[in-house]
Amino acid sequence: MSSPVLPSHGRVRPLGLAQVRLTGGFWHERQAVNASATLAHCEAWMERLGWLANFDRVADGTTGPDRPGWPFSDSEVYKLLEALAWEAARTGAPEAEAAIERLTARIARAQDPDGYLNTCFGHGDQPPRYSDLEGGHELYNTGHLLQAAVARLRTHGEDDLVRLARRAADHVCRTFGLAGICGHPEIEVGLAEFGRATGEDRYVEQARLFLDRRGHGTLRDIPLGRAYFQDDLPIREAGVWRGHAVRALYLTAAAVDVAVERRDDELLQAVERQWERSVARRTYITGGMGSRHQDEGFGEDWELPPDRAYCETCAGVASVMVSWRLLLATGDARYADLIERTLYNVVAASPSPDGRAFFYANPLHQRTPGRSADPDEVSPRAEGGTRAAWFDVSCCPTNVARTLASLHGYLATSDDDGLQLHQYAPCSISAELPDGRRAAVEVETGYPRTGTVRVRITADAAAPWTLALRVPAWAAGATLTDAGRTREVAPGVAQLRRAFRASDVITLDLPVEPRFTWPDPRIDAVRGCVAVERGPEVLCAESRDLPGPDALDALVIDTGAGLKAGDGAALARALLPAHPGGGWPYLTHQAALTGDARWIDLPLRPYRTWAQRGPAGMRVWLPVSTPHPEGE
Amino acid sequence: MSSPVLPSHGRVRPLGLAQVRLTGGFWHERQAVNASATLAHCEAWMERLGWLANFDRVADGTTGPDRPGWPFSDSEVYKLLEALAWEAARTGAPEAEAAIERLTARIARAQDPDGYLNTCFGHGDQPPRYSDLEGGHELYNTGHLLQAAVARLRTHGEDDLVRLARRAADHVCRTFGLAGICGHPEIEVGLAEFGRATGEDRYVEQARLFLDRRGHGTLRDIPLGRAYFQDDLPIREAGVWRGHAVRALYLTAAAVDVAVERRDDELLQAVERQWERSVARRTYITGGMGSRHQDEGFGEDWELPPDRAYCETCAGVASVMVSWRLLLATGDARYADLIERTLYNVVAASPSPDGRAFFYANPLHQRTPGRSADPDEVSPRAEGGTRAAWFDVSCCPTNVARTLASLHGYLATSDDDGLQLHQYAPCSISAELPDGRRAAVEVETGYPRTGTVRVRITADAAAPWTLALRVPAWAAGATLTDAGRTREVAPGVAQLRRAFRASDVITLDLPVEPRFTWPDPRIDAVRGCVAVERGPEVLCAESRDLPGPDALDALVIDTGAGLKAGDGAALARALLPAHPGGGWPYLTHQAALTGDARWIDLPLRPYRTWAQRGPAGMRVWLPVSTPHPEGE
Repeated sequence: MSSPVLPSHGRVRPLGLAQVRLTGGFWHERQAVNASATLAHCEAWMERLGWLANFDRVADGTTGPDRPGWPFSDSEVYKLLEALAWEAARTGAPEAEAAIERLTARIARAQDPDGYLNTCFGHGDQPPRYSDLEGGHELYNTGHLLQAAVARLRTHGEDDLVRLARRAADHVCRTFGLAGICGHPEIEVGLAEFGRATGEDRYVEQARLFLDRRGHGTLRDIPLGRAYFQDDLPIREAGVWRGHAVRALYLTAAAVDVAVERRDDELLQAVERQWERSVARRTYITGGMGSRHQDEGFGEDWELPPDRAYCETCAGVASVMVSWRLLLATGDARYADLIERTLYNVVAASPSPDGRAFFYANPLHQRTPGRSADPDEVSPRAEGGTRAAWFDVSCCPTNVARTLASLHGYLATSDDDGLQLHQYAPCSISAELPDGRRAAVEVETGYPRTGTVRVRITADAAAPWTLALRVPAWAAGATLTDAGRTREVAPGVAQLRRAFRASDVITLDLPVEPRFTWPDPRIDAVRGCVAVERGPEVLCAESRDLPGPDALDALVIDTGAGLKAGDGAALARALLPAHPGGGWPYLTHQAALTGDARWIDLPLRPYRTWAQRGPAGMRVWLPVSTPHPEGE
Repeated sequence: MSSPVLPSHGRVRPLGLAQVRLTGGFWHERQAVNASATLAHCEAWMERLGWLANFDRVADGTTGPDRPGWPFSDSEVYKLLEALAWEAARTGAPEAEAAIERLTARIARAQDPDGYLNTCFGHGDQPPRYSDLEGGHELYNTGHLLQAAVARLRTHGEDDLVRLARRAADHVCRTFGLAGICGHPEIEVGLAEFGRATGEDRYVEQARLFLDRRGHGTLRDIPLGRAYFQDDLPIREAGVWRGHAVRALYLTAAAVDVAVERRDDELLQAVERQWERSVARRTYITGGMGSRHQDEGFGEDWELPPDRAYCETCAGVASVMVSWRLLLATGDARYADLIERTLYNVVAASPSPDGRAFFYANPLHQRTPGRSADPDEVSPRAEGGTRAAWFDVSCCPTNVARTLASLHGYLATSDDDGLQLHQYAPCSISAELPDGRRAAVEVETGYPRTGTVRVRITADAAAPWTLALRVPAWAAGATLTDAGRTREVAPGVAQLRRAFRASDVITLDLPVEPRFTWPDPRIDAVRGCVAVERGPEVLCAESRDLPGPDALDALVIDTGAGLKAGDGAALARALLPAHPGGGWPYLTHQAALTGDARWIDLPLRPYRTWAQRGPAGMRVWLPVSTPHPEGE
């Protein structure tokens, strides 16, 4: 069966990618753009920058100190290969298949006879293999190679890519049997899944070794501290995610895999505890993770500045990886809630509508508009506000590509008794249940613009099965209509069990009217502000909907006036005070409004669409004008 | 005359360091500790780490790729020399004089015949001279050498240090006549003052060349962007400080020097404009500058997060350098206001009471206590919360040392008609005015603990002169008592003009009761908070005065209850709400208080003393419970 993650057991099981098909709507369109534009865009950039030729140069013995790209550029090729493998299976597109063969052939030539495969170390005048475990990313690269091979093996079967990945994985197991970890976790999640896909448990065991070896200060200390690469504390002892967000999350994804395969409940509970605290205290309303630019890392509890939010797109992808694994292990709807939030407000925010430019950082407040990116230019910086065609460090585009190409795999799961719908999009699903029962449905919906989700049964059942529908945590007042009867369903999971008949229709109605959302009072950076959400979408204000360059700094929302429909996804009533200019900004009295203040209807639009109309200032959190003492 | 800065003209003139003597109080004590502990501490660390031996190794031809220290470690030796020169003149201490001769002899041996002097480039296997202008700090080092030589020349006269500095300066002028600037400004301010001290205008001219050459993108672009080293915009065109804070401020100090020497009002006005906007929108209530750890830099307008405030100690020193030069040029009391604020709340916050440990970063909110620093350990990180004995990058200790050793130079100025007192401390001042008039006073005060400043005239005047007393901007309601008559004086400057008689006493009474201070509503990060100040001191709450580890996160101040005297510098009435634990922190309603909330009297202490009782959580900005709509 083909799916990015296939645990040997768990509360629910992934459906194979062939069992789910997106048939329309937002994600279907994103998949189409990914297929028609992003995949070729990524390959073209890597060709242009010499990241692909790095493999040829190793094979030809011509690589040298002038090798272009960072040490981790090989991983971008592998992430593209993973995306191509999912895409080739999704549509059978011959271009994707041809690209896989083309790239695989070049990679294969660069592999050393003992299985080592890397274009930055160990050849010509390059530093020796594994001479910089902290920063060299060699095992990180191999981890992405293994994830690509998993995709290929599950969608196509054994081929040259899978064979070379086996040799690379064997090389890692031989070399790192006794000691050593990589500064950037990823080999662990790659090995664990490769072990599952090949049926070779020793790969899972090597992943476990890497996991348990970490956290004992075996990597060299660095100015950012060992927490940066999670070598400060063993994962079983840590209480919260910290350090570089993508590293922390890739490591955690592997920890779930190992915990499940080893039936290691202690490890699974440690991860769930970390998820809980990190989501409660270190996660943005968008689902974004990473509060600091300095180390691309988590901040401390309650440190969630909207303007300096890093919220790397890759951390969004990695967060989905973690929550998906926890959802499979536990069936708990809270994981699907976070996946949905992160997909709409981080992963989908990154790519431009044409699929050829990407946000790297996803701040929640942009004070000055970003620059207009030249589509022919490599952005040297991971700044917010600018979707760039490519980056000097360009991890995000291929991460978006592989996630979108396999996105239909994250919509639903099954268990012995039925089907669980976690994400709502127009789609067709068919799953075989035990005892010859078939659970087949088609979903029709305009979600998230509208809240009505129609689930039509498409196969008669010989025996009862259970249809479980996630009711998002924000959806208080949701209703379920079945056979003409409507009942309210609480956030969590709504279940129906019977011998469904083809053409039965179950309708879930989710309240997607725009709503105000208040932050925990301990989140210092957004005290005295509200956000506006609509269904799973976080909304934002953009400077181009406001008069004058300073209005975004000064605006104040009247929550008492409610929210209206109008231009954008919602309209809020906002005051634009005139502030006296200049002078020392710390005052002996509270600032008073001048007579020049005026009221406007402030358009709010989905956060993920921001800056699509051009560079703009933006803010998610809106200062409130109404008195809001605690306790009221 | 001896003083760190001696412009050829200006609205007011510095007094020579021999004309002002601190006789007691806070700064006098800091000078004593600096003399008795910090100077030897710095020399011992630089000996231990080989930063001093780097000069010997160049002289002996034994330096190599294993040279310890960063490329800018030479500058620490020079900053220590500058501190020693001021200190030797202040007290005539033979240890300081001996240290100057000892260090000078070692430095002199390392100078190349053509005047080049640097331990990191140009010798043995080192990279060639000036092969890394962006990061090599060669001219930066030379700038600090020149500042040390200025101190020596003005306090002692020509000696080996001054002679070698001349050769180094001449080398710079020969080498950089046509092109090139240093990634870290400092050579400019060093050359300008060295030109003043030696009377050689060509050094001032070279400073002008460097200044005008900057801002045209001559340095290589870097991931942080050219704004990092102010090579993005010519200084005459820039509207605000940006990029690395210390770089921006050293550059600006030089710009004032050049503007004054060249009577270049356009340049002076550009600097004043930048000061105004930067102080109004990019400066912390402590006077601290630098909102970002990532680049040790200014943020954008209104980007002033208290928890991630960098507020490097050196930026505080550099800010004082800038404002002092502007004060001399213009006489405007606002510059003295900022100097006072910065001295008490940044510069004085850095050193421990024993003068052997230092804050590098000075955040306004510490969520988790820093570590206890080992006095025998080099701190690898510029983190907040820990005063460390020494740092891997250890610019701050020597910067504090040179500032404290010359601090009496920043208290007062004179002009043709009198004396201006800018900072209040127990001191003795004597200045010659034109027409044989002598302005001599003694100041007695317990400031800033108490607000009464007694200025006793100590010499009869043959003719009238003007005594000008700064009334700080926060001191509304201040009174001046002269000859039994008391009148209210407005913030700014209070002046008295007459033929003063010895033993006349003028008393300034400043209201130093603790007071609430509100931020401009556009400073997003502290919306809904107040600070508490007392005179020029910013106060803070520390976790060790609170029950339980989470109280600092949750506390809420009732401003309506006012402030009381008590333990610490003030007591505020604070509520400690109990927050429900865990869960998604973005709520469909405003958080309500639970029945477990309780009221306490919260001690507030001077910010500069924080963590002196041991590692602690801390916050300057305190959430408020009272309704505080704009416009009330």
